[in-house]
Amino acid sequence: MSITFEVFRGSNEGKIVADKTTRVLEPNEVYIETTHSGLCGTDEHYLTSGIALGHEGVGIVRQLGRDVTSVKVGARVGFGYTHYVCGNCEKCLSGWDQYCENKKEYGSHDHDLGSFSGGTVWDARCVVPIPDGYESADAAPMMCAGATVWTCLMEYGVKPIDRVAVMGVGGLGHLAIKLASAMGCHVVVLSSSDAKRKEAFEFGASEYHVFRKGEELEDFKPVNHLLLCGSGSVDYSSLIPIMDVHGSIYPLTVDMVPSPVPLVFMNLKGIRIQGSLVASRRSLRSLLEFVAAKKITPTSMIFPLTTEGIETAMQTLRGGKMRYRGVLVRE
Amino acid sequence: MSITFEVFRGSNEGKIVADKTTRVLEPNEVYIETTHSGLCGTDEHYLTSGIALGHEGVGIVRQLGRDVTSVKVGARVGFGYTHYVCGNCEKCLSGWDQYCENKKEYGSHDHDLGSFSGGTVWDARCVVPIPDGYESADAAPMMCAGATVWTCLMEYGVKPIDRVAVMGVGGLGHLAIKLASAMGCHVVVLSSSDAKRKEAFEFGASEYHVFRKGEELEDFKPVNHLLLCGSGSVDYSSLIPIMDVHGSIYPLTVDMVPSPVPLVFMNLKGIRIQGSLVASRRSLRSLLEFVAAKKITPTSMIFPLTTEGIETAMQTLRGGKMRYRGVLVRE
Repeated sequence: MSITFEVFRGSNEGKIVADKTTRVLEPNEVYIETTHSGLCGTDEHYLTSGIALGHEGVGIVRQLGRDVTSVKVGARVGFGYTHYVCGNCEKCLSGWDQYCENKKEYGSHDHDLGSFSGGTVWDARCVVPIPDGYESADAAPMMCAGATVWTCLMEYGVKPIDRVAVMGVGGLGHLAIKLASAMGCHVVVLSSSDAKRKEAFEFGASEYHVFRKGEELEDFKPVNHLLLCGSGSVDYSSLIPIMDVHGSIYPLTVDMVPSPVPLVFMNLKGIRIQGSLVASRRSLRSLLEFVAAKKITPTSMIFPLTTEGIETAMQTLRGGKMRYRGVLVRE
Repeated sequence: MSITFEVFRGSNEGKIVADKTTRVLEPNEVYIETTHSGLCGTDEHYLTSGIALGHEGVGIVRQLGRDVTSVKVGARVGFGYTHYVCGNCEKCLSGWDQYCENKKEYGSHDHDLGSFSGGTVWDARCVVPIPDGYESADAAPMMCAGATVWTCLMEYGVKPIDRVAVMGVGGLGHLAIKLASAMGCHVVVLSSSDAKRKEAFEFGASEYHVFRKGEELEDFKPVNHLLLCGSGSVDYSSLIPIMDVHGSIYPLTVDMVPSPVPLVFMNLKGIRIQGSLVASRRSLRSLLEFVAAKKITPTSMIFPLTTEGIETAMQTLRGGKMRYRGVLVRE
């Protein structure tokens, strides 16, 4: 039984191109009709690669492979970064299945499967149920932006008594503020300008500081955790004074060039830099349950899930005008 | 009541100079007659600074300040990196007193107090009892080299089922092998040559690999922890393939220049870089109890604690000939 669905790719020229692809459902797979997709900075990185873009999908399960029992036709599900995990390797068994030794993931596995699409084919165990009453447009950005900051906040010892700093108020950063604040943390926002001060406090921040490269913060109480959510390169030397002893830095900024890190000074304060990658399946589920229970939603701009809509959304993101996550909706 | 004792300093010309200094004992202080001192690479860094050198001391308590009740005259004690902690700040209260907010430490506090000396004056709470039957010459290198690797092995989640790599077989590295091995870990030694293979296995290593900058290890099973104990700068990009998911790197190498770190690749494997600083008082005590119980001793070379002895020892270290920690003994 083969299924044909629409996908949107980038191209050599950096233009969005609509295309169709056909798949036969494997026994463990489901076919999802895409209804919503978040837009992530990573899509920009893949723009000229020719792959189907998008990894913050929400949709409705329309067909089940022969062996699928974990989801039903009609279920509303999220699908994100990971197409498939084996469930049986050491990483899966320890709950860190985003590092599955046999995983198939967005951007490298199947070039025709993404959430900028009319539909997609996914391993049934890698879709996430969306809680009733939680809007699909709100769920989509959770699949990567939310997942990425949630793992930092959940898996590495952040406590409600901690001072949690968020540097960069964008797609990831604004969700980090909302989530950390809902966890009881004292949220300290560091931004390169004063422009987002009012909104940051509305999101749940307790402090807002303008912090630019090469400048020092005065009368600043050091923080226990620092999520780097900006898009630019980071001056690690300037971060040392703002970190408390045993503080943790989470470098979520995608910077392909190695960053100079003053390790001796990190030793003097026992600072760690913690690498982190989206979220495990367990963690994604807990995120959706948490945001549904706490009524936490992303602050987003809606675009149509069409060639033109994607182009406009990417242009908005590129121009630094997205407030704060773009969501594409299929009409 | 004033006490005069001999100290050995570096000088502008990089020569060791014998000197005398006089102190009045504060109520909380003890006077220790130095009997042994380890020699650390850091002493080389301070060689031209003019301060009294040495921070791996062992000696006998000879006089007590008015308020001291925690040690007795005649006690054999170690003294290392930290002269004084307040015991009352947030860091002290959480057990991480090596980061005490009011600490006084070697190299910055009092330029006349070091373990290259005939004696020293120390806060009574910052001396460590040496277990009966454990040799002073063996205890001395524990005060910094042992302490530094012990904190990595004790405080950041190393488990006996873990693969623990030690890069660089020197003062710190050889102790890391002995300690991790005694903890039940599978110890993997990475060295720039084959020269120390036999000894590494005698120290407790289970694997030995020659690993040079820019080279890749073949058929290498990734490790959970990596202690960087070498003296040179480290190519962090070459470390990524040898780390397991959620592995930890401990950069114990003192490299004053910021190191380029490929953070994106660290994210893909969830790797952390954990800064770490010598040891807390609690941790130092547990180290001495552990090495005494397990009969773990440093492999050392003995030199007299005299101007000439120090010069010879430092020359040996500088020439890469120390096997593996120098210990100065006062005759």
